[in-house]
Amino acid sequence: MANITKKVSWSSRPDESGSAGDATPLLNGSEQPRYSRQNSAGGNMFHIGRLSTVDLEEEITSEEDSLRGRPKEIPHNEKLLSLKFESLDYDNIENQLFLEEERRMSPMNFRCLEISRWVVCGLIGFLTGLIACSIDIIVEKLAGYKYQAVKENIEKFTEGGGLSVSLILWAVLNSSFVMVGSITVAFFEPIAAGSGIPQIKCYLNGVKIPRVVRLKTLMVKVFGVICSVVGGLAVGKEGPMIHSGAVVAAGVSQGRSTSLKRDFKMFEYFRRDTEKRDFVSAGAAAGVSAAFGAPVGGVLFSLEEGASFWNQMLTWRIFFASMISTFTLNFVLSVYHKTPGQLSSPGLINFGRFDSDTMAYDLYEVPLFIIMGAIGGVLGALFNILNYWLTIFRIRYVHRPCLQVMEAMLVAAVTATVSFTMIYFSNDCQPLDTDQTEEYPLQFFCADGEYNSMATAFFNTPERSVRSLFHNQAGTYNPLTLGLFTLTYFLLACWTYGLAVSAGVFIPSLLIGAAWGRLFGIMLATITPNNPVWADPGKYALIGAAAQLGGIVRMTLSLTVIMMEATGNVTYGFPIMLVLMTAKIVGDYFVEGLYDIHIKLQSVPFLHWEAPATSHWLTAREVMSSPVTCLNRIEKVGTIVDILSNTSTNHNGFPVVVQITGSDEPEKLCGLILRSQLIVLLKHKVFMELARSRLTRRKLQLKDFRDAYPRFPPIQSIHVSQDERECMMDLTEFMNPTPYTVPQDTSLPRVFKLFRALGLRHLVVVDDENGVVGLVTRKDLARYHMGKHGLEELQLAQT
Amino acid sequence: MANITKKVSWSSRPDESGSAGDATPLLNGSEQPRYSRQNSAGGNMFHIGRLSTVDLEEEITSEEDSLRGRPKEIPHNEKLLSLKFESLDYDNIENQLFLEEERRMSPMNFRCLEISRWVVCGLIGFLTGLIACSIDIIVEKLAGYKYQAVKENIEKFTEGGGLSVSLILWAVLNSSFVMVGSITVAFFEPIAAGSGIPQIKCYLNGVKIPRVVRLKTLMVKVFGVICSVVGGLAVGKEGPMIHSGAVVAAGVSQGRSTSLKRDFKMFEYFRRDTEKRDFVSAGAAAGVSAAFGAPVGGVLFSLEEGASFWNQMLTWRIFFASMISTFTLNFVLSVYHKTPGQLSSPGLINFGRFDSDTMAYDLYEVPLFIIMGAIGGVLGALFNILNYWLTIFRIRYVHRPCLQVMEAMLVAAVTATVSFTMIYFSNDCQPLDTDQTEEYPLQFFCADGEYNSMATAFFNTPERSVRSLFHNQAGTYNPLTLGLFTLTYFLLACWTYGLAVSAGVFIPSLLIGAAWGRLFGIMLATITPNNPVWADPGKYALIGAAAQLGGIVRMTLSLTVIMMEATGNVTYGFPIMLVLMTAKIVGDYFVEGLYDIHIKLQSVPFLHWEAPATSHWLTAREVMSSPVTCLNRIEKVGTIVDILSNTSTNHNGFPVVVQITGSDEPEKLCGLILRSQLIVLLKHKVFMELARSRLTRRKLQLKDFRDAYPRFPPIQSIHVSQDERECMMDLTEFMNPTPYTVPQDTSLPRVFKLFRALGLRHLVVVDDENGVVGLVTRKDLARYHMGKHGLEELQLAQT
Repeated sequence: MANITKKVSWSSRPDESGSAGDATPLLNGSEQPRYSRQNSAGGNMFHIGRLSTVDLEEEITSEEDSLRGRPKEIPHNEKLLSLKFESLDYDNIENQLFLEEERRMSPMNFRCLEISRWVVCGLIGFLTGLIACSIDIIVEKLAGYKYQAVKENIEKFTEGGGLSVSLILWAVLNSSFVMVGSITVAFFEPIAAGSGIPQIKCYLNGVKIPRVVRLKTLMVKVFGVICSVVGGLAVGKEGPMIHSGAVVAAGVSQGRSTSLKRDFKMFEYFRRDTEKRDFVSAGAAAGVSAAFGAPVGGVLFSLEEGASFWNQMLTWRIFFASMISTFTLNFVLSVYHKTPGQLSSPGLINFGRFDSDTMAYDLYEVPLFIIMGAIGGVLGALFNILNYWLTIFRIRYVHRPCLQVMEAMLVAAVTATVSFTMIYFSNDCQPLDTDQTEEYPLQFFCADGEYNSMATAFFNTPERSVRSLFHNQAGTYNPLTLGLFTLTYFLLACWTYGLAVSAGVFIPSLLIGAAWGRLFGIMLATITPNNPVWADPGKYALIGAAAQLGGIVRMTLSLTVIMMEATGNVTYGFPIMLVLMTAKIVGDYFVEGLYDIHIKLQSVPFLHWEAPATSHWLTAREVMSSPVTCLNRIEKVGTIVDILSNTSTNHNGFPVVVQITGSDEPEKLCGLILRSQLIVLLKHKVFMELARSRLTRRKLQLKDFRDAYPRFPPIQSIHVSQDERECMMDLTEFMNPTPYTVPQDTSLPRVFKLFRALGLRHLVVVDDENGVVGLVTRKDLARYHMGKHGLEELQLAQT
Repeated sequence: MANITKKVSWSSRPDESGSAGDATPLLNGSEQPRYSRQNSAGGNMFHIGRLSTVDLEEEITSEEDSLRGRPKEIPHNEKLLSLKFESLDYDNIENQLFLEEERRMSPMNFRCLEISRWVVCGLIGFLTGLIACSIDIIVEKLAGYKYQAVKENIEKFTEGGGLSVSLILWAVLNSSFVMVGSITVAFFEPIAAGSGIPQIKCYLNGVKIPRVVRLKTLMVKVFGVICSVVGGLAVGKEGPMIHSGAVVAAGVSQGRSTSLKRDFKMFEYFRRDTEKRDFVSAGAAAGVSAAFGAPVGGVLFSLEEGASFWNQMLTWRIFFASMISTFTLNFVLSVYHKTPGQLSSPGLINFGRFDSDTMAYDLYEVPLFIIMGAIGGVLGALFNILNYWLTIFRIRYVHRPCLQVMEAMLVAAVTATVSFTMIYFSNDCQPLDTDQTEEYPLQFFCADGEYNSMATAFFNTPERSVRSLFHNQAGTYNPLTLGLFTLTYFLLACWTYGLAVSAGVFIPSLLIGAAWGRLFGIMLATITPNNPVWADPGKYALIGAAAQLGGIVRMTLSLTVIMMEATGNVTYGFPIMLVLMTAKIVGDYFVEGLYDIHIKLQSVPFLHWEAPATSHWLTAREVMSSPVTCLNRIEKVGTIVDILSNTSTNHNGFPVVVQITGSDEPEKLCGLILRSQLIVLLKHKVFMELARSRLTRRKLQLKDFRDAYPRFPPIQSIHVSQDERECMMDLTEFMNPTPYTVPQDTSLPRVFKLFRALGLRHLVVVDDENGVVGLVTRKDLARYHMGKHGLEELQLAQT
């Protein structure tokens, strides 16, 4: 990766990013010199194995300035950590208002709350399932029309020549669909591009990704995914379901839509990050469940990505949402297919029925599975590296929306052309069975009663192609067809991922893997033709699919379970686990998983499970940001407004300190207050002087904070007059009086564990006498990661 | 439950238990008056909804004294919390020694550690699988001989009369097996009684249960379970596998056996609670996996019971152990059944193959499933209540080992007699198929070519009976047979659970449920005979089995997945989830789950997932124990010995404080040290004076602590001379310098969350100036629970 890094050289200037992150002009109102982060790139207090910042400093090229014009959304290279992302607050703000409310609640109130949580989860599952089956039905219909039209056209021109007309028809049809989808995404909601899984991973990890769970995003996502799948791109509609489920959850659980400006006055209790994140977990699980018919896999996905703390009731609720989701999908599809009640399609992708008797595996196949896992790992790593380079290229040159749309259309046209060429030059003719699974068999130049086998793979929705590769009779495909298909589809899928269209990478990965897996099976059968064990190459197609997918996305337990559930058979659990494990180990040797690469390229401060193993010698003192902007318990309004208005710091949490008046003792920590709370206080003008003069004034309630959640107004929109600036604000009632603290000598792993396990946003570092000396936030912890040469530190950057 | 409580009246005297728990005679060496817990039964500082202690005080009866003679192991009533249980320490002790070691380690060392973790997990899985299949093979063999002998005997006497001889033979055979098993358990290792699941739940929750993971326990468990299953009791061999797996894990991961006094000098890094508990999770998962062929279910079981924090790599390792375990079992059994490589029996219990085509369910069956779930919940609650009363009875009257053995023999004899009588009076004759699944068909008084259907259910290992109920043709059993069987087996199973034998309750529950479920199915078919959907009562047998098991044990996600994996088919996921959910809701309305009841009866300080919902008005100040015995950073040896020797307190953790010499400032917290550490320090005589005189003396290393783990010697065994008592000990290097702390005003849920999420043992409560004011331990948090009438507080008791 070192040489890859060299190519990405547009970091912000180190001195800029160093000071930007933590400039803290005010400490209790007294002017202090602008502070430039001591323990970062600036004056190094310590040395880490190989400081990546040094590499970066050397690489500031002349390109830097020319790139200043690019929009803010454009991701940076993976050695930077962006400061623009905020954290979610999984820790309840247990201030006096909150405690009073909780204490007023009776056991019956809590039971009602619990019941409404279940209702919300049921709704989430139901709506997610509905969305999934609408997408499925629309895609099937539209793709059906398209393939039918192209098929008829091809048949017309096969005899008489002039097939180039068919090619043009196909390419134009594909490009138009993709264009529409791409325009929606690129111009209306760029966050809806891709599968959304990296974004949801970040959200569940505790990073607030702007606009990721809005209604508009959902609309664009659903529309976009239909267009891109119908447009014949090498994509799947499964990944986006996870994002869709998450948006549904975030919407339903709040009982209102900020976009539509409708408040149903329901579920007001859930209007905070803690509750919302739990529901989003349920939504993501419901999405997985609907996509793959894998409710348990969905739960495990949510837990693997999101859970900082396993809670039995929460898990059970998530499972409920998943079950409802797959059940709804199953039921609606059964009605649509005119067999109501026959619940046979639990997910968008259906691997078809694997019979445990005919497809059992034998002990001596285990080494073969491991070899396949390794192949999957290598191919996956190759895919990721190619896509990484492509993404870097896109960041540099394809960042304007119109360019993005054009690229998407180009890919669509190329996909159609390549497919057509492959089919055209293929001479793999297969007899047309009466019970064959292909919906649009292309005869092409084959004899009557035969069809072109290459067309089965290309001229079909990817889901159907996967199923054909798993289940078609041995001999349906010849090895050359499979080899060529693998190669072209690999390159197409790699090019496609990262386009400005809504689409997932699960199905293309499965398809590539199924193709080379089947090839592997056929080769085995060729070498030792009389062994009945590998008579059926479909088994190897399944293992190959798992290996390829594992090599690309590197998920572990959840993916095993998803694959197990999608096959509907637990017999393959062991081989799938082996294959995924091997693929992950081999792949991790070369490069990270695809989602992690994209997360890094966005410079998201993503927290992994544990602190780097070799970070025990770092302590809170070195990690924390300091000095900290503190507020007094009773603070002047002007000071607060100044602090909040300071755009160069943009702090979100402020320790509240108190000093016994007249004493010499140092100030002690007595609480923590958030920017959002201060904004609400300023908006409602909760000033001590006003409270005295207007006694009838209603007391500020928790409801006021909930109404403002989650889109708190910016400080600029709040008008504070010169007189009001002289007022005082009493923060006692609103601050969190018991923030979590650590002493300065706490080791980084210990700080990390506390921070991660409790899903914190701010962790106050205190000295022996409970005075504030620093603040640890997400970026302070995410900065450290294990590189090839030991511990590395990422550079902080403003954008 | 209120009237049940009345019957259990032997609490310790409140004043006794009040003072025993927290008497702290020394605060920094200065004599203080004996302190009796202020915020407990003594001087009430606050009032909780309905203080259960008041009820208990009123009920001290004359029985109390007569019960003093009973052994310490005997559990108390469920309104007490025992102080005898210690906590595991999931929090690393990050003292200087540890940090130095960690800092010396290179990334390569960490990689090796990681690899050895995987090796250990592989070994755990392999050994657990081996144990499972040895049990299976031995039980099958022995039970085969037994049933063959009895069958021949019955056939001999059926013609000529005198069947009472057969009955006696049967009863004597059963009783002898059970006697041997029961003697081993009752006299050698009482902790091996039962399924061990409650104990493992407690261990994973963080409670140190004495002797629960020792080699001896494993031996007795394995031997005992073979005896009790062969002895024909209404028990299963699946539950004990979980315990066995846990013991294997605790043994293998430590690289030595303290019992056998063998140290292989391996895995020394893993000799601490944190690592050990992770491995025990893997062992428990491997046990579930081997028992039910459910690797994913196993992982979920471990997580549901144990995980305070979900860690991706840990989960993945646990899954690996599970997979290896079921694979080993499967492979060895395939070799044993002379079909090597055909991996068809992944678990001890095999539900047989459910074909998704013939056994699909329809939408309008969903309400029926819910009804069955409710029935399961009610029957489960009934089972639990009956067993609760029985356990109370046993605690009172059957606590001597010889009485326990006699009871077990009695149950064995009664089981045989009842079975025999049922078979004798049954006239349910069925034609003998050629492909029938019964291994020992009893003809009895049936015509030639027929067999007695009641005998299929009784005259068989319970696993086979379950399978017959699931898969036998419709019409194999008549409704009366099933009804009678349900009733008798329900009572027998209820009587059997809690005997001094090693055995599980899973299989009996499944069997009861399968019987009434099948009955339910038959009744449906009778009411509407022409509906093809319920033509097969086997489906209802499966649902009934799930309902009954769910109603008794109340597990959620893990049980759903276990059932799904055991059926080898994901189609039933939704109905099983529905049924388990209903059973849990209905059952919880009446009484807790069986394991929870037994945990409560043992007065274990078990921490649930969250603090009670209505506990927000309690703060750390009210919850904590205070005053706390603190140590100075440089402390006199005599003081330490005195504190440790004080049997009335028996504290395990001591905050270390420091005061700037000569200053007036109050003492500040500077660390936390454990009893076990002090013991090691005293044993190695790490005194400052000695260090000066003997400069060549080797420095104490982390290895010395690891060698002493986990059986630290008692303080009485360490001789400290009068001279040495005057020496000083410097604790700086050994104490944990950064213990987690909370301010006094922190609410109980917040304290609870921190404590639970990080798996703490001690949490120091500090004042504004970082002075120690209290200590929160497990019992302080476990005391509060939601009762029927709001928050209740449990009484603390010494035994």
